[in-house]
Amino acid sequence: MPKLEGKVLIAQGGGPTAVINQSIVGVALEARKFAQVDRVYGACHGIEGIVNEEFLDLTQETTHNLEQVALSPASALGSTRMKPTPDLCKEMFRVMRAHDVRYFFYVGGNDSSDTCRIINEEANSADYELRCIHVPKTIDNDLVGNDHSPGFGSAARFVASAFSGINLDNRALPGVYIGVVMGRHAGFLTAASSLAKKYPDDGPHLIYVPERAFDIDKFILDVKKVYDRLGRCVIAVSEGIHDTQGNLIIANLVKNVEKDDHGNVQLSGTGALGDLLATQIKARTEIKRVRADTHGYLQRSFLGCVSDVDQNEAREVGEKGVHFALWHDVDGSVAIRRTGNYSVDYTLQNFENVAAQTKTMPDSFLDESGTFVTNDFLLYARPLIGSDFEHPHRIRAPKVAKLITP
Amino acid sequence: MPKLEGKVLIAQGGGPTAVINQSIVGVALEARKFAQVDRVYGACHGIEGIVNEEFLDLTQETTHNLEQVALSPASALGSTRMKPTPDLCKEMFRVMRAHDVRYFFYVGGNDSSDTCRIINEEANSADYELRCIHVPKTIDNDLVGNDHSPGFGSAARFVASAFSGINLDNRALPGVYIGVVMGRHAGFLTAASSLAKKYPDDGPHLIYVPERAFDIDKFILDVKKVYDRLGRCVIAVSEGIHDTQGNLIIANLVKNVEKDDHGNVQLSGTGALGDLLATQIKARTEIKRVRADTHGYLQRSFLGCVSDVDQNEAREVGEKGVHFALWHDVDGSVAIRRTGNYSVDYTLQNFENVAAQTKTMPDSFLDESGTFVTNDFLLYARPLIGSDFEHPHRIRAPKVAKLITP
Repeated sequence: MPKLEGKVLIAQGGGPTAVINQSIVGVALEARKFAQVDRVYGACHGIEGIVNEEFLDLTQETTHNLEQVALSPASALGSTRMKPTPDLCKEMFRVMRAHDVRYFFYVGGNDSSDTCRIINEEANSADYELRCIHVPKTIDNDLVGNDHSPGFGSAARFVASAFSGINLDNRALPGVYIGVVMGRHAGFLTAASSLAKKYPDDGPHLIYVPERAFDIDKFILDVKKVYDRLGRCVIAVSEGIHDTQGNLIIANLVKNVEKDDHGNVQLSGTGALGDLLATQIKARTEIKRVRADTHGYLQRSFLGCVSDVDQNEAREVGEKGVHFALWHDVDGSVAIRRTGNYSVDYTLQNFENVAAQTKTMPDSFLDESGTFVTNDFLLYARPLIGSDFEHPHRIRAPKVAKLITP
Repeated sequence: MPKLEGKVLIAQGGGPTAVINQSIVGVALEARKFAQVDRVYGACHGIEGIVNEEFLDLTQETTHNLEQVALSPASALGSTRMKPTPDLCKEMFRVMRAHDVRYFFYVGGNDSSDTCRIINEEANSADYELRCIHVPKTIDNDLVGNDHSPGFGSAARFVASAFSGINLDNRALPGVYIGVVMGRHAGFLTAASSLAKKYPDDGPHLIYVPERAFDIDKFILDVKKVYDRLGRCVIAVSEGIHDTQGNLIIANLVKNVEKDDHGNVQLSGTGALGDLLATQIKARTEIKRVRADTHGYLQRSFLGCVSDVDQNEAREVGEKGVHFALWHDVDGSVAIRRTGNYSVDYTLQNFENVAAQTKTMPDSFLDESGTFVTNDFLLYARPLIGSDFEHPHRIRAPKVAKLITP
């Protein structure tokens, strides 16, 4: 079989992660090893850059700098939220064909895998030979057919570090603390707030995820119960919590709801949900010190908080994507499969298995109360946040006997 | 002169920092070396713990665990916002005298130095011999007579890391990003958002601090100007920004303003300010993607984001405090003096110099526009965030010549 000769094109779609550049660099460096690859191009801002013919020639970048870029968070090529319509796809082919692009790698989440699927179909019907590979990433960890997604481990490390520090802060100045965590349909990242719990009374004490309907009355009771027991309460809340009818709690608050091209309601970039919950606690309990933080975009791009396991895997999904396309001449979505505790390998799925679908947490990851994780979750998630995770220490000195006060 | 024999008491007041435990452990371990020190006690939750006679016997804690605690953020002894009234001070003395406390170390900010001053006066008028040392800390960096305060460097490192990552995120998915940073009267921490800028068009592009009056109309114009030039805009805003009359912008928003015992308006723990500014930009410009995050409590307690310079100095202000009290038999507030670029030594100030006063940024730290820092600030602040600060890298590959699009 003659080898498919031409250019490699890499692009990224959706929200950045701390390790997405590992995947891009993994593709770029691995593809250079194949003689049938003429050039490796990177599209600026995903499919927008393809339509507008805005490419960078990554073959003219030093390996050394690419390795440095791999260590940097966010997406060095730029990203997009644009969804490819059939017309856009036709336009993209015109550009790809003009540049003799024969291998297309798209790093992204479930929306991006859908983009890959559409482009692949369009290529087939246009009789244009194009290998199409979806390289997974998402901090939400909601890609089906994947044990977990590159990007999740580093974001989970951030959330675990944040709640570990917040727990200490809340212990020093007691009160109620609400931290709002990213996560539209899946609560994995919010559940990761539990990963750095060490002492039995450490927070977070309550975790609310989209996998369980949110009830404000029960929430108030839950908080009061913890507060009465410990004199403080640390709470992790997914931005995507909703009521029993599936209505987002935040959508009840914000008047002009903003939606992206994929029809998703804009959840991040506002403190409204945290503030609502804090206001409710203040109004309906005697608790005076109530604070809410929305951890926002720091979760996915904070410089210097990255999981080495996540870095390695993000690099490998890129490299393996190249192997599937260039050694095996197949299209599809690269997936991570867990083979041991802890080890992984990589498979290729059909786009249809991943595209526009959402994986949520299995029931076994949440306990009966629905407001905390199980050991199953801890065993699942702990390896993903990587090594050298710091753990705080408490003073364990004995109390001094009182001499005068009762 | 006979040596003053008795117990050492350590307490903390005000907001936690990433390195306050270094100071507490610095006092505890250094004090153990003096034969006239009977025991070293730690008061739980600052002066509340003294009034309630809630002490831990730190002499019965292992040195090893204390060293581990020193590496943990927040305050391991617990803190308080309570202000000592004369009656409370009398009560505290009754307790201190009963336990034969003769050396009192209070780690805190300007409110805490005022607490030290009151306790010292009360001790003098009660003819109770007590060495009183204020050990400085505050992420706000607003203690007069100090080149900078322990706790600031680590918080500045967090803010610099956050904005460095956010800049990359905003570059990948362009729009306007507003990050609200802690800082009531002093803009040092917000200004630290500039410390990781590397490439000329990196954000933050605009910085708003309490040292300059905030005008919403000018703000909108500033943002539009940057957005028109770069297609994006990253903004750092102090929570304490105010109008020309000195009215806090956030106080115009929140109906029931919460105040602490020191009369300070509660600024943190709400996303209201960021949301207000984002709403204004959306309403008054054509810019669609506008996001606001309030970095909140993560700034002072995030696990694993600490400046080694800050750690060292926080340890030393504790140790030096012990030297002043036990070798030199004097009271006062320990201060950091910069002696070179970069080196420091430690002096002792009168409480009156520090107590209830606020240092703000000198004019030389802000440029003419009032919305960005000068090189003087960069030279001042860069050593404080410590070593091994990561810097992101960009792809510098050349653009590919367009073949079909105009």
